[in-house]
Amino acid sequence: MSALLPPNPITATVPFDQDGIHHGFLRLPYSCDSSAWGSIMIPITVVRNGIGMTALLTGGNHGDEYEGPIALQGLAHDLDPASIEGRVIIVPFMNTPAFHAARRTSPLDGGNLNRSFPGKPDGTPTQKIADYFTRTLLPMSDYVLDFHSGGKTLDFVPFAAAHLLDDGNQQEACIAAMHAFNAPYAMTLREIDAVGMYDTTAEEAGKIFVSTELGGGGTATARSAGYAKKGARNFLRYAGILTDAAPVLEPSIEIDTTRGDCYHLAEYGGLVECLVDLGDAVKTGEPLARIWPSDRSGTAPRIVTARSGGILAARHFPGLIAPGDCLAVVAEVVSGG
Amino acid sequence: MSALLPPNPITATVPFDQDGIHHGFLRLPYSCDSSAWGSIMIPITVVRNGIGMTALLTGGNHGDEYEGPIALQGLAHDLDPASIEGRVIIVPFMNTPAFHAARRTSPLDGGNLNRSFPGKPDGTPTQKIADYFTRTLLPMSDYVLDFHSGGKTLDFVPFAAAHLLDDGNQQEACIAAMHAFNAPYAMTLREIDAVGMYDTTAEEAGKIFVSTELGGGGTATARSAGYAKKGARNFLRYAGILTDAAPVLEPSIEIDTTRGDCYHLAEYGGLVECLVDLGDAVKTGEPLARIWPSDRSGTAPRIVTARSGGILAARHFPGLIAPGDCLAVVAEVVSGG
Amino acid sequence: MSALLPPNPITATVPFDQDGIHHGFLRLPYSCDSSAWGSIMIPITVVRNGIGMTALLTGGNHGDEYEGPIALQGLAHDLDPASIEGRVIIVPFMNTPAFHAARRTSPLDGGNLNRSFPGKPDGTPTQKIADYFTRTLLPMSDYVLDFHSGGKTLDFVPFAAAHLLDDGNQQEACIAAMHAFNAPYAMTLREIDAVGMYDTTAEEAGKIFVSTELGGGGTATARSAGYAKKGARNFLRYAGILTDAAPVLEPSIEIDTTRGDCYHLAEYGGLVECLVDLGDAVKTGEPLARIWPSDRSGTAPRIVTARSGGILAARHFPGLIAPGDCLAVVAEVVSGG
Amino acid sequence: MSALLPPNPITATVPFDQDGIHHGFLRLPYSCDSSAWGSIMIPITVVRNGIGMTALLTGGNHGDEYEGPIALQGLAHDLDPASIEGRVIIVPFMNTPAFHAARRTSPLDGGNLNRSFPGKPDGTPTQKIADYFTRTLLPMSDYVLDFHSGGKTLDFVPFAAAHLLDDGNQQEACIAAMHAFNAPYAMTLREIDAVGMYDTTAEEAGKIFVSTELGGGGTATARSAGYAKKGARNFLRYAGILTDAAPVLEPSIEIDTTRGDCYHLAEYGGLVECLVDLGDAVKTGEPLARIWPSDRSGTAPRIVTARSGGILAARHFPGLIAPGDCLAVVAEVVSGG
Amino acid sequence: MSALLPPNPITATVPFDQDGIHHGFLRLPYSCDSSAWGSIMIPITVVRNGIGMTALLTGGNHGDEYEGPIALQGLAHDLDPASIEGRVIIVPFMNTPAFHAARRTSPLDGGNLNRSFPGKPDGTPTQKIADYFTRTLLPMSDYVLDFHSGGKTLDFVPFAAAHLLDDGNQQEACIAAMHAFNAPYAMTLREIDAVGMYDTTAEEAGKIFVSTELGGGGTATARSAGYAKKGARNFLRYAGILTDAAPVLEPSIEIDTTRGDCYHLAEYGGLVECLVDLGDAVKTGEPLARIWPSDRSGTAPRIVTARSGGILAARHFPGLIAPGDCLAVVAEVVSGG
Amino acid sequence: MSALLPPNPITATVPFDQDGIHHGFLRLPYSCDSSAWGSIMIPITVVRNGIGMTALLTGGNHGDEYEGPIALQGLAHDLDPASIEGRVIIVPFMNTPAFHAARRTSPLDGGNLNRSFPGKPDGTPTQKIADYFTRTLLPMSDYVLDFHSGGKTLDFVPFAAAHLLDDGNQQEACIAAMHAFNAPYAMTLREIDAVGMYDTTAEEAGKIFVSTELGGGGTATARSAGYAKKGARNFLRYAGILTDAAPVLEPSIEIDTTRGDCYHLAEYGGLVECLVDLGDAVKTGEPLARIWPSDRSGTAPRIVTARSGGILAARHFPGLIAPGDCLAVVAEVVSGG
Repeated sequence: MSALLPPNPITATVPFDQDGIHHGFLRLPYSCDSSAWGSIMIPITVVRNGIGMTALLTGGNHGDEYEGPIALQGLAHDLDPASIEGRVIIVPFMNTPAFHAARRTSPLDGGNLNRSFPGKPDGTPTQKIADYFTRTLLPMSDYVLDFHSGGKTLDFVPFAAAHLLDDGNQQEACIAAMHAFNAPYAMTLREIDAVGMYDTTAEEAGKIFVSTELGGGGTATARSAGYAKKGARNFLRYAGILTDAAPVLEPSIEIDTTRGDCYHLAEYGGLVECLVDLGDAVKTGEPLARIWPSDRSGTAPRIVTARSGGILAARHFPGLIAPGDCLAVVAEVVSGG
Repeated sequence: MSALLPPNPITATVPFDQDGIHHGFLRLPYSCDSSAWGSIMIPITVVRNGIGMTALLTGGNHGDEYEGPIALQGLAHDLDPASIEGRVIIVPFMNTPAFHAARRTSPLDGGNLNRSFPGKPDGTPTQKIADYFTRTLLPMSDYVLDFHSGGKTLDFVPFAAAHLLDDGNQQEACIAAMHAFNAPYAMTLREIDAVGMYDTTAEEAGKIFVSTELGGGGTATARSAGYAKKGARNFLRYAGILTDAAPVLEPSIEIDTTRGDCYHLAEYGGLVECLVDLGDAVKTGEPLARIWPSDRSGTAPRIVTARSGGILAARHFPGLIAPGDCLAVVAEVVSGG
Repeated sequence: MSALLPPNPITATVPFDQDGIHHGFLRLPYSCDSSAWGSIMIPITVVRNGIGMTALLTGGNHGDEYEGPIALQGLAHDLDPASIEGRVIIVPFMNTPAFHAARRTSPLDGGNLNRSFPGKPDGTPTQKIADYFTRTLLPMSDYVLDFHSGGKTLDFVPFAAAHLLDDGNQQEACIAAMHAFNAPYAMTLREIDAVGMYDTTAEEAGKIFVSTELGGGGTATARSAGYAKKGARNFLRYAGILTDAAPVLEPSIEIDTTRGDCYHLAEYGGLVECLVDLGDAVKTGEPLARIWPSDRSGTAPRIVTARSGGILAARHFPGLIAPGDCLAVVAEVVSGG
Repeated sequence: MSALLPPNPITATVPFDQDGIHHGFLRLPYSCDSSAWGSIMIPITVVRNGIGMTALLTGGNHGDEYEGPIALQGLAHDLDPASIEGRVIIVPFMNTPAFHAARRTSPLDGGNLNRSFPGKPDGTPTQKIADYFTRTLLPMSDYVLDFHSGGKTLDFVPFAAAHLLDDGNQQEACIAAMHAFNAPYAMTLREIDAVGMYDTTAEEAGKIFVSTELGGGGTATARSAGYAKKGARNFLRYAGILTDAAPVLEPSIEIDTTRGDCYHLAEYGGLVECLVDLGDAVKTGEPLARIWPSDRSGTAPRIVTARSGGILAARHFPGLIAPGDCLAVVAEVVSGG
Repeated sequence: MSALLPPNPITATVPFDQDGIHHGFLRLPYSCDSSAWGSIMIPITVVRNGIGMTALLTGGNHGDEYEGPIALQGLAHDLDPASIEGRVIIVPFMNTPAFHAARRTSPLDGGNLNRSFPGKPDGTPTQKIADYFTRTLLPMSDYVLDFHSGGKTLDFVPFAAAHLLDDGNQQEACIAAMHAFNAPYAMTLREIDAVGMYDTTAEEAGKIFVSTELGGGGTATARSAGYAKKGARNFLRYAGILTDAAPVLEPSIEIDTTRGDCYHLAEYGGLVECLVDLGDAVKTGEPLARIWPSDRSGTAPRIVTARSGGILAARHFPGLIAPGDCLAVVAEVVSGG
Repeated sequence: MSALLPPNPITATVPFDQDGIHHGFLRLPYSCDSSAWGSIMIPITVVRNGIGMTALLTGGNHGDEYEGPIALQGLAHDLDPASIEGRVIIVPFMNTPAFHAARRTSPLDGGNLNRSFPGKPDGTPTQKIADYFTRTLLPMSDYVLDFHSGGKTLDFVPFAAAHLLDDGNQQEACIAAMHAFNAPYAMTLREIDAVGMYDTTAEEAGKIFVSTELGGGGTATARSAGYAKKGARNFLRYAGILTDAAPVLEPSIEIDTTRGDCYHLAEYGGLVECLVDLGDAVKTGEPLARIWPSDRSGTAPRIVTARSGGILAARHFPGLIAPGDCLAVVAEVVSGG
C-alpha cells in the first residue's frame, strides 16, 4: 500500500550515511499566511561510525514534555562519533511547532503527533511528520527510544515502558531494553486511547521500542532530566552502539497498570485537593482526592476513592479539573517496591 | 483622601456581624458583552462567635496558585463557629475571574491583583476588588494571611514570609505570626517589583500580615496543601481566634534573599536544563542551569552560574525560558538548615 | 462496509438493558492541550421498563438551541419508569462541547454535528459522536425525535417536521408522529444543504423520525419550551411507550416550503429592518425587509420583496446581515391557517 | 474644569449651522496596527431649518441594540428639512466600532460607551467619543433621545424611561417627553450600575432626556422597530421641531422598578427554563425560572421565585446563565395595566 | 472517477450561455456559527458574444495578492460584449473569504486554495471552491489566466509564467500565451511545493494556462497593476476573443529558476538586511542579505551568499524572517536582460 | 512635577559613563501570565570615547518599521569607539515587544509608543518605556535621531523631517541636522494626530531632533536601508561625534505638507487601485486612485482626485482600504524637484 502513497515532502539537510557528526534539519515546506514559501525546520543530528545498529532517539513528540529534549540536546552536542559503533539519529523535538509553542499539540493544525501515525504525506503538517518517521526514519532504525513525560496536565512517577506484543522475541527485547534504560520504575503500559501512536507503528515495524514517562507538569527537574540522560546512554549501550561501558543499573520498581480499575476519572469539575502524592502507597477504598466546587464556598467536596491498591503512579497536574479528566492512576507493584 | 473616593460597587450577600457561619458572595456588577447586567461573584465565608479579633484569610490573589484555595475551601466548610472566639473572614479566590481562568491575572482586564492595590472603586474589575479589600475588609481585620505559591511559571521551597517594617512592634508580631504558621522554610522576602501589592496595603494599615509561597507550577500536592492547611489553623491559633490548641510546630529553616545577587535572570531564551533542584545546596560559581538554543541541535548551551551560595529557593518552572525571566533564586540559610 | 470500520471509542457509563432510570455519560476520550488524558462527557439518561419500543430523544444537536435541552432535562429528571413500557434514551446535549460553548458548532473542531453524519469513529470528536449515534444508538431505537430551533442566527414559527421519503409506510408513520407531537405548525421541510444530516441517517435506517424548529435566537421562552415539553410526551404516547394518556392535541397549521421561491437570501449586507414578523401573512411582491448600509447615513436601503405569498415562517435573527445569509422563508399555508 | 481639558480630536465633516440636510461623519483619528493613519468614521446627519430647538437623537450607544439604528437610519434618509423648525442631529451608531462588531462594547478598547461618560479627550476611542458628546453635541442640544434595547443578553417589554431628577421642572419635562414618545410601557428606571452613563451627563447638563428599552436579544422585529419609528417622530413633535402633527398616542402601561426586590439574580449557572414570559403577570413567591445543571442529566434544578409581584419586565436572554447574571426584573404596574 | 463524486453545492446566479454581460455570484451554502443558513458569495462576471473560445480569468486565488483583482474588477466593469467574440468568465476573488480577510488562506478552514485542487465537493469550503473550478468552470474554458503576486510575505520581479508540460503542443501554446501577456519578465517556473495547484489541474485538463507573479507585499502599485491590466487584454487578444487589436508588446526579459540552487532559504531567524534589490544583478558568492539576531545588539549577523548568479527575482518581504523561510530566489537570465 | 513621580522601574545593564562599547539591556520587570517574575529586555548599546556631545539613536518606536533597526544593529556592531568623540546611545528597538511581534503597537498593552509620551513610570509597559526615555535617556542627550518608516499600512518617499518650533535657534539646528542626514527628500511634517509623540517630548527638552520616514509596507529594501545607514553616520558627523569625515551629501528634494488639503482620506472601503505611484507628479483634480467595492463585480468604483498638486509623498499600502484611512498625501515641492 505504501507504494501508492505520494513521496513525503520532507528533505533532510544532513547525510545519513556519512561517518562523523552532522547537525541539520528535516525541512518540511509549509505555505501559510506568515510565509508563503516557508518551511518547518525540525532539528536533527546524525552521529555515525562505521557499520552497525541504528538507534533512533526522539523527544518532543508532545511539545510540552522536556526530559527527552534536554537529554537529547545534550547528547547531540556531546556524543563523540569515535565512542560509538553504528549510528545514532537524534530528533530532540519531533513535533517542532508544538515544542516551540510549548503545547502538547501542533499550533498549525491541532495535531497530536502521537495520535497521527502512520501519517499521511499529503495531510496536515503533523501527519506529514508522522509519515516521514514511518516511511523514512523507522526503516533505517533497529532500536527506537521515544521520550515522554506527563506534559502540562499530567504527572508521573518516572518510568520506562514496554508494551505487550504478539512477537515474543520482540517483546522480550523491548523489555530488556526497558530494563537497560533503568528508570526508577518500569511499567507495562496500556494506553487509554491507542489509535495512531508512534509506539504501535514502530513496534509493528519490528523495532526494539522503549517509551518513557519521566515526570510532568510542563517542566523538568535536575532529577527527572537525570533519568533521561542516564537512560539514553544506557539504551545505546544495550543496543551495542555506545561501547564505553555496560548500562549503569540501579534498583527499579516494576509496576503494572493493565487492570481496568487503575484509572480514576473525575465525574465532577472543580478544585483538586490531592490526598496522596506520586509514589505513595494506596489502599483500595482510600480517598485519593477531594474535588471542591469552585463557584462558592461552604459546599461539601466530592471524594474520589481508590478502586484498587498499589501506588499512585500518575495524577492530574493542574489545580482545576474538568469532568472526564483522568484524576489518578493507581499502579500495582509487581516487584521491587 | 479616601473620603473623596466614590463608594465601592461591591456588595456582600453575607452579614459580617452575626454569629454563626455564613457562606455567600461579594457581588461586583460587571456589564460586558456576555452579560449586560452581569456580576462577578466572589465566594466568601464569614465565621463569627462573639467579640474578638478578626482574621482575614485569602487565597487566589493570583488565580493559578492552589494551596491557599484548597486550605480555605476546607476551612470554610469545616470550621465550627463554636471552636473560635472572634471572627474569621475567608475569601478563597480573591481574584475569582483569574481563578476560574486558571491564570495569574484577570481575563477581564489583564489585571494582576497583587499589583493593583490600593485599588480604585471606579477602575477595572481588578482595581475594584483591590479597593474593596483596602477600604472594607482590611479595616475590619486584625490578622491577615494571604496565600501564594509560584503559579504556573515559578516553583518555590515552601515558606511563610514576613516583610521588614518601619514599626518594630508590628514587624515583631508579623514575624511571630510567620513562625506560628510554621512552614518548612521561613523567609524575609524582598519583592522584585513591590508597587501595588496587597502586602504593603495591609501592612501600612497596621495589620499583622503573613504571606506565603508554598509550591508552584500551577498545581498543589498533598504535601504542599498540607502546609497550607496546618498553617491556616496555626495562624488562627496564634491570633487567639482558634482556641483548640497552641500552634503545632515543627522544625523550620530560616532563609534570606535580601542580597541583590540572589536573583538570577536569563539573558538568553531556550530550553532550560536545571542542574540543581529546589532545596539543594548551592555554592558560589556552581552551574545552576544550562539554557539550550531550541532552534537547532549541536549548539553549545549557555550556562548560568550561582553568584552567591545557599540553597535553591525558587526556580523558573516551564521547560522553555525567555530572556528576562527569573531563572533561579539562591537563598542564604540563616538558621535551621 | 460498517464491518470494516474501527470500533467507536465512546463508552457509556449507564446500562441500556436494565429496568429503572439511569443517569450517566457517554464518555469520549479526547487528548488535548488542556487535558492529555481527558474525555468529553455527554450526559445521557436511560429509562426502561420491560420489553417494548425504544425512543431516542435528543437536543443540543446544535449547541445554541434550547427548547430541546430544557424539555429533555425535565423529562430525564421527572420520567417515572413505572409510567412507561419499553425504553427511552435521552441525550439532552448531543454535541456537548458545542452546547457548553453556546455555539452551533463544536469549539473543538468546528464541526456542525448535523452535517457530520454518518460520522467517522477515527475522525474528529464531532464525527465520533455522529458515528456513535449511527452505529450504536440508532440501531437500538424505533422512534427518534431530534429537537432543533433556529439558534442564534435564525428564528422560526414553532413547527414539527417530517421529510418526504421513498418508503411510503415509513413516511406515513413519520407524518403521524409529527402530528402527534402537535406543535402550532407542521411543516414538510426541504433542507437548503442536506448532506450529512442526522435526519437522513435515521430515516435511512428505517426509523420513525421527527424533527422540530421551535423558536430561535439563542434563547427559549416559557411558551416555546412549553411546545417542546408537550411534544416530547406526545411523541412517547404516540410510540406507545408513555402509557398515561393519548397525545394531547390542539389545532395546528400545516405549512409547506418545498417551492424553490420560499427562500429569500440577502445579496447586500447591512442593518436589517424587518417589515413583517413571524407568522404574519405575506403577499407576493410585498416588501419583507429593508437592508440599510451601515457605513454611513442618508443612503437609500435595499428592499427585499416576497417572491411568493404565505406566512413568514423563518427569518434572519441578528440585527446585521451579510451577503448570502437567508433573510426570510415564506411558507405556503396548506391547511389550518 | 473643562477649560483645562485638551481639545477633542474628533472633527465633523458636516456643518451644524446650515439649513438643509447634510450627511457625513464624525471623524476620530485612530492610529493602530491595521491603519497607521486611520480614523473611526461615525455617521451623522444634521437636518436644519431656521432657528429653533435642537434635538439630538442617538442609537448604537451599545452596539448590539437595533431598534434605534433602524429608526434613525430611516429618519436620516426620510426627514424633509421643510417639515421641521430648528435642528435635528442624528447619530444612528454612537459607538460605531461596537456597532460594526455587533457587540455591546467597543472591540478597540473594550469600552462600554454608556459607562464612559463624561469621557476623556485623550483617553481611549470610546472615551473620546463620550467626550465629544459631552463637550460638543450636548451643548448644542435641547432635547436628547437615546435609544436602547436589551442587546444580545437581555430582553425587555418595550418602554420609554425617564429618571428621577433633583430639578422638578426638568423632571416634569422629561416625563412629558417620555409620555410623548408613547412606547407600550413607560418606566421610571433605576440603574443597577449608574456610573458613567450618558443619561446622567445629559441630565446634569439640563437637557430634556428620554431613554428607551424597546426589545432585546440582538435583533429587532417589525413591531419593536415600529415603536422606535413612531417614538422618534413623536419626540420631535413634543419638542416642537417636527410640526406636521401632534404626537400620535396609544394606551401605555406605567411600570416601576425602584423597589430593591425587583431584580432577581442567578446564584447558580446552568440552562435557563423560563416559566413566565415578558409581560406576564407574576405573583410574589411564584416560580420565575428553573436553572438546570448542564454538566449532567437527572439532577434537580434550582428554582428562582419572585420576591415581589407585578409583570415580568426584563429577562436574561441567552439559554445559558452564569452566577451573578440578572435573570429577571419584575416591575410593579403603576397604572394602565 | 468523477462520476462517483457528489454534485458540487455551488450554484451560479448568472447564466453562462446568454449573450451580454451578467454580474452575479457563485453561491456556496455555508452553515456556521455566525449564520446557520449562510452562504459564501463569490462575485462572478460572464461576458458573452456568440460562439467562440472561452477564457477564464481569475484573481484572488490567494487572498492577499491584488494586481489580479484590480485588473479583473476593471475588466468586469468595462468590457463591452460587442468588443468580443466568444466568452469571458471573470472571477476576481476566487477564494473570496481569504480575499475579504486579506489573507493568503481562508479564515474559514485555513485552506490554501492553490494547494486544494482538484478539490472535494463534500470537503471544506476551500475544497468545494476548488472542485467547482475543476468540474464546472474549467470544462467550459479554453484559455485560463490565473493572477498571482507575492502576497504579504514575498515580492517578485513582475513576470508571467508557463510550466513545462508533457504535451509539446500544449506547452507551446502556453508559452505563446505567456509571451502575449507580455509582462516585463517571463519565467519558466518550478514550484517548491506543487501538490494541489490550480495550474496542474488546468494543464492536465488540456487548457492553455498562464500564471503570473506581478509584485507582492500585500499591495499593488499603479505600475504593477498596469502590467495586469495590459496583460489581461493581451491574453484575450491572443485567444482571439478580444478582437480590437493585436497584443500590445514591449521588451521582456526571459528568466529561469529551474536550477536547484536558485532558492536561498534562511536557516536563522532575525532581522533581514537586504543587500541587493529585486532585478539587481547578482554574482555567485555575493552576499544577498544579512540576518541580524533581534534579541540583543552587538552580535554579528549571519550572511547569506548567492549560490548562483543572475538577477534577484524574488525575496522575502517582511522585515523579520524565520528559519525555513525562502529569503531569495536568484534567476538566471536566459535572454533579453 | 517630575519630582513627584515614582522612580522608573527600568534598569540598564550597561554603564553610560565608561569609555568603550557596551552591549546590554534596558530591563523592565513585567509580571504576567507567561512569567510571574519576567522582564522585558530592550537591547541597548552605549559607545563612548571621552567627553563630548551625546547622540541618542532609536529605531523600532513602531515595531513594524525596519530601516532604523537595520542601520542601528549595524552601527552597534561596527562603530569603533576610537572613531568618535563623546557618546552614542543606540536603542535599535525602542518598543521591543512591538518589534518582536512585528506590530506597530505593543502586544502587551496595545500601546502606540509614539502616542504614549511623556509616559508614566507606574503605567503600562509602553508608558514605562516612554517615561524612561523622557526622564533618563533624553536628559543625557544632545542630539536625537528617531527612525520611522510607514510600517505595514503606509508607504513614503524617503525623507528626513524637522518640525516647526517656537525656538528659532533650535529649529535652525534641527533643520541643519535634517539636511545633514541627507535623505532623498526633506520634509516639514505636520502630524495628523500629534498628542503623545516622542518628537514633541524631545523638542520640548531642547534637543536637536530629527525624524524620518524612509519607506514602508513592513519591509526594507537595500536602497531604503541604505538611506538609513548613510543618514545615521551623517547625523553623527553633524553632531561632531563621528569625526571621520564631513557628512556625505547628495541632492535632496524639499517638500512640504503643511497645507490642509495634502491629506486624502478614503470615505469608502474596498479594493484600492492606485493610479499614481510614490514620487510621481500630481496635478490638482487628477485621479489618485479608484476604490472598487469588493463584495461584487460590475459596480462602478469611487474615484479619489487630488485636491492639490505636487508629488505623491505617501500612500495607503495594503490592497484593501477602510473608510477613514489615509489614502494619499500629496506634497508640495519646495525646491530641488
